[in-house]
Amino acid sequence: MQNIIATTAPVHPLLLQRWSPKAFQESPVPAATLSSLFEAARLAPSCHNEQPWHFIVATKDTPLYQQLLQCFNEDNQAWAFTAPVLMVAVAKMYFDHNGAPNPFAWHDVGLAVANLTVQAVSEGLQVCEAAGIDLEHIYEIFDIPEGYQPVTGIALGYAGDADGLPAPLQAKHHRTRTRKPVNSFVHYGQPAFKMELNEQQQQVYNLVREKISFGDLRPAFAFAQQRLKR
Amino acid sequence: MQNIIATTAPVHPLLLQRWSPKAFQESPVPAATLSSLFEAARLAPSCHNEQPWHFIVATKDTPLYQQLLQCFNEDNQAWAFTAPVLMVAVAKMYFDHNGAPNPFAWHDVGLAVANLTVQAVSEGLQVCEAAGIDLEHIYEIFDIPEGYQPVTGIALGYAGDADGLPAPLQAKHHRTRTRKPVNSFVHYGQPAFKMELNEQQQQVYNLVREKISFGDLRPAFAFAQQRLKR
Repeated sequence: MQNIIATTAPVHPLLLQRWSPKAFQESPVPAATLSSLFEAARLAPSCHNEQPWHFIVATKDTPLYQQLLQCFNEDNQAWAFTAPVLMVAVAKMYFDHNGAPNPFAWHDVGLAVANLTVQAVSEGLQVCEAAGIDLEHIYEIFDIPEGYQPVTGIALGYAGDADGLPAPLQAKHHRTRTRKPVNSFVHYGQPAFKMELNEQQQQVYNLVREKISFGDLRPAFAFAQQRLKR
Repeated sequence: MQNIIATTAPVHPLLLQRWSPKAFQESPVPAATLSSLFEAARLAPSCHNEQPWHFIVATKDTPLYQQLLQCFNEDNQAWAFTAPVLMVAVAKMYFDHNGAPNPFAWHDVGLAVANLTVQAVSEGLQVCEAAGIDLEHIYEIFDIPEGYQPVTGIALGYAGDADGLPAPLQAKHHRTRTRKPVNSFVHYGQPAFKMELNEQQQQVYNLVREKISFGDLRPAFAFAQQRLKR
């Protein structure tokens, strides 16, 4: 077992043993195992029991796999191609019962993905999520309509050996994992939140935020990518 | 064990045994157990390892508890008061490294809450999340600034007996739990998403969506509550 984060209190092994590998073994994931993973996701709670999660899934032996790989951005394709299973999680952004937008959808997709991940670890698998996905491409090839929103790419498989990957990805695969201490995010009293940005960061925040619209992050992402690359 | 959802494939007991009770036992949660829960949350993955989760927490023996209870809306206060521990999860909505808004924050808070929940179940506890929280009140008493956003209320404790609660809450506590089948949200091919709303629902969607602004859901919630109650 590698890459365990030190904790100040005991944590269940299924949570402790989870990590985000950048390389996977070639071994396919049995269909029955995938079924267990999606049943695990299915059991997550959600606001109004809306269950706003969707998973577009491909195993490496199917034509859809290449399409899903193209949904990851280039940096992530460089390692995700090693995974025997790729997915894109999509959030349904409105409530069935009244049509109102569902701001909890992303949170609830997180609950479902975490359930899927716990089940994966219990089956000896690991998951690496990729926030860096190609939104334009996903909207186009999967014909995502208003009311739905791609959330995250997911690579799944048995953790592998990164030796065949470029050096920066090997480094990511092997890097020491870090977390903020619990007392930085747990507040048994007034939390004293404060937005701490320098002038340049504040500009970026304001500019990108302007572009963010509920239900479609494409304008914000396109803008941010342009701006942040400069 | 009560309230297990039937699955078509085996799921790990920690996920299978999780449910959302509307009544908790009086027994307090030991401090050491709470530490394990927050260490579990801490281990969740996040976009850029930003760890955008915060938890404002109170145990029943502290003055903060009443304040946190007031953060739940009235319907949820009617059962949440039975929980020995209450929390509000707050998302940090920007990235430290460049100041850009973090649209993954809610998803990542979901990952952390799910980890906390798995740890809770492993300790014999249960969690009930409450999306129905009083945003105005939370912003005011906890002085939530731009860049932070309350996500969900969390009630935690050992599942209890609902006999002392009003009949509708007893019914909720005991209700048969339902989920959509896996094949309704897992797509091994083109998903064919479609927004299906009747005319009235489409109006609600459009009207509420207009009010949703990244980083502050208050205008949308205030509007939706007014509108949907009519």
